[in-house]
Amino acid sequence: MKRYERVAAALQQRMDHGLYRTGDRLPSIRELCAEFAVSVSTVQTAYAELESAGLVEARPKSGYFMQARRRHGLLPAPSRPAQRPLDVSQWDEVLALVNQAEHEAGLRLGSGSPDLTAVTLKPLRRELSALYRRNEPALDNYDTLAGSLALRRQLARLAGAAGTSLHEDDIVITSGCQESLSIAIRTLTTPGDVVAVDSPSFYGSMQTLKAHGLKALELPTDPRSGISLQALELALEQWPIKAIQLTATNNNPLGFTMPDERKQALVRLAQRFDVAIIEDDVYGDLAYTGPRPRTIKSWDEDGRVLLCSGFSKTLMPSLRLGWIAPGRYREQALHMKFVSTGATATVPQLAVARFIERGGYERHLRQAVRLYQRNLAVILGWIQSLFPADIAVSCPQGGFVLWVELQGVDCVKLNARLQRNGIQIAPGVVFSASGKYRDCLRINLVRADAEVKAALQRMAQEVDQLRSR
Amino acid sequence: MKRYERVAAALQQRMDHGLYRTGDRLPSIRELCAEFAVSVSTVQTAYAELESAGLVEARPKSGYFMQARRRHGLLPAPSRPAQRPLDVSQWDEVLALVNQAEHEAGLRLGSGSPDLTAVTLKPLRRELSALYRRNEPALDNYDTLAGSLALRRQLARLAGAAGTSLHEDDIVITSGCQESLSIAIRTLTTPGDVVAVDSPSFYGSMQTLKAHGLKALELPTDPRSGISLQALELALEQWPIKAIQLTATNNNPLGFTMPDERKQALVRLAQRFDVAIIEDDVYGDLAYTGPRPRTIKSWDEDGRVLLCSGFSKTLMPSLRLGWIAPGRYREQALHMKFVSTGATATVPQLAVARFIERGGYERHLRQAVRLYQRNLAVILGWIQSLFPADIAVSCPQGGFVLWVELQGVDCVKLNARLQRNGIQIAPGVVFSASGKYRDCLRINLVRADAEVKAALQRMAQEVDQLRSR
Repeated sequence: MKRYERVAAALQQRMDHGLYRTGDRLPSIRELCAEFAVSVSTVQTAYAELESAGLVEARPKSGYFMQARRRHGLLPAPSRPAQRPLDVSQWDEVLALVNQAEHEAGLRLGSGSPDLTAVTLKPLRRELSALYRRNEPALDNYDTLAGSLALRRQLARLAGAAGTSLHEDDIVITSGCQESLSIAIRTLTTPGDVVAVDSPSFYGSMQTLKAHGLKALELPTDPRSGISLQALELALEQWPIKAIQLTATNNNPLGFTMPDERKQALVRLAQRFDVAIIEDDVYGDLAYTGPRPRTIKSWDEDGRVLLCSGFSKTLMPSLRLGWIAPGRYREQALHMKFVSTGATATVPQLAVARFIERGGYERHLRQAVRLYQRNLAVILGWIQSLFPADIAVSCPQGGFVLWVELQGVDCVKLNARLQRNGIQIAPGVVFSASGKYRDCLRINLVRADAEVKAALQRMAQEVDQLRSR
Repeated sequence: MKRYERVAAALQQRMDHGLYRTGDRLPSIRELCAEFAVSVSTVQTAYAELESAGLVEARPKSGYFMQARRRHGLLPAPSRPAQRPLDVSQWDEVLALVNQAEHEAGLRLGSGSPDLTAVTLKPLRRELSALYRRNEPALDNYDTLAGSLALRRQLARLAGAAGTSLHEDDIVITSGCQESLSIAIRTLTTPGDVVAVDSPSFYGSMQTLKAHGLKALELPTDPRSGISLQALELALEQWPIKAIQLTATNNNPLGFTMPDERKQALVRLAQRFDVAIIEDDVYGDLAYTGPRPRTIKSWDEDGRVLLCSGFSKTLMPSLRLGWIAPGRYREQALHMKFVSTGATATVPQLAVARFIERGGYERHLRQAVRLYQRNLAVILGWIQSLFPADIAVSCPQGGFVLWVELQGVDCVKLNARLQRNGIQIAPGVVFSASGKYRDCLRINLVRADAEVKAALQRMAQEVDQLRSR
């Protein structure tokens, strides 16, 4: 290894391990000369190498900075699903994925759970504990149907700060974002209707289509910018589409955020064809760089966007706490909420309202986002060093999941093999209505420790074996 | 007032105020002679009077006992709803009923909430508080889809002890009985289908029919013994009924429990016509006299009964904790559970499992049932003394609601008048698909204090005014 390669490799490793973060200024040439006992030109060559790999950016008279969008091999190609309404399948695969208790698999790399070990969650648990300890019968009764006013006020305030103008009365609290999505879909459709979805798409919302006899029309989706608006327009011309359902911010599983102008264009398209938009924003608060991306809802002029969100990805899944801002569909959505679960548990709502009010939510978000971004860098580094160069990996702009495309590898088989070793992944097929993405998988970025590294090593070996057959 | 009348009135007042409970042995003739300074024949005449009123029972050589089924004026006549499938209406009235926060109305006599002030609930709140205080990330994750094994084991054990043989794997935990009912209905039907229901019927399940585009066929229902099986048989011959939905034990709002032989006959009828039964058993644990009534499910031979229950009526609504034993429909019900709310909150499940295991649940039930039975006696006494003799009142065998029929009084109007005085009742119309039972109302038996008595006095005045117009 040449001198400049040694310096470049060391810097890359530090970036991979999160010692530097996106946008950070990297050590000066002089500092690196001293540290590695090399010449100025060696350090300059090392930086040029990293710059051409897209890892660092040289800013005149300022020095070198870690790149916001690191290139890491290939991005997956835009998806090309069949452009027609399909029945949703893959329930068995989804059930296998979601129905595995924490203790059953050694390492749940396929999990959609956030970091639950953060110290910044402790004040929330203290609130929950304290509210029950108060022994207050009023807290144990049915809540009003729309949910706690204290929480709706906090949610309206947070939404406003992020550019989405919502009144507390625009919001209905739910038992988690899945209930919000289910309410939205049942509010808008009857069996046989067609719903256009991003693809790959969150399996929870697609299974909701299946459960209610709806058809999914999967839209080609770019792993950097989201659904193809051209394809959507063609589909709207051709099919009687009732709603468009998508995750436009920190997408699950691809990690992209649709640029603002595309979100706006989507709203215009929905207006033109008079269809509703179901916006799953459950990862929306987890962008790696500020400001908080705007929702599609923020451009909604006539109440056709049903904004769905919840705290399962930002706080704890077990709170079962979400909300929906159903726009012009408020009355129907409230009716659906009533028949779906009657009311939402009171204590978690009050605890979260206080937690937000006291700054605990934003404090926790900062900590969580930092962790996920650090882990992303570390895990990308491991993937680069462990896997063949032809695989493709998503470039998340937020959230805690990574999408990996392993050309030629059956990831359902891969998952079965890994499970024998106590490792679970989320096979790509669950993110499609029709079993596409068989050579893809989603992995969780919440941990990036020795166990995860060993799991990736194991995975690389299995991939090697599966490919060589 | 004659002497024997004075003695009888005193005894009746004590029974009304709950000094004696159903089945209690009443004071001996000798004791009463001493207390009232009257002759043996006077006390004998007093007891004969009470006996002929159905309030006490003479048992040879044992003495006098308070009657299990007290007669208190008229029972409502069996209902006679239209025998054809109807669209469900009354959502505005239901919304007005359920959407009133505790603080908005002074006295919520229309509430469906149980007693939340009992000291026997404190250990449960302590469990909840302690579990959150443990700061254990594993408790904050998504639970498995079927719910906590610890809780399902306790539920299977309780069911078994009450004659319903269930395995822990037969049970799916839900976010409250309303979710169970919603899952059951969505599992069995598609829009346009017909569901037969008891009538009056729980508004939550009827609104679920409405929300999913189903039609209700209301069955004539006897306030002592439940739905007319003859009418059901005719309806099954005439209409393509997909399911029968009813509350057969401690019915809401009528309070009856269908006799065992009628429950059995219902199962045979369902078998013959190959329809499913949705059994709402949410009040089932609240029978005033033992043993715990058997469920319809306990006679289910081929998995066609979907048993729905929860802890909102026995513990606290805000736990949002229920379950469903969906029989042969388990796979579809599990799918519906997944798309409905994803999973159920973990901590409440574990807390309730422990509470049951340590005997807290049965201890609380005993206390609650005693309270409701005592309050029933007191409130019946007040109604007898305050209202005209021609009104009819249900004869609950369990639970904490009373159904009152005020011939010729519009109870929607009555409710509006009472609300101006901070009193809320549940007007009968919400218990019908089609706005029947306009002269009925349901009142809650959880409290029987001076405020409730004053509310009943106010109600009697309003009734008087409404009738005289």
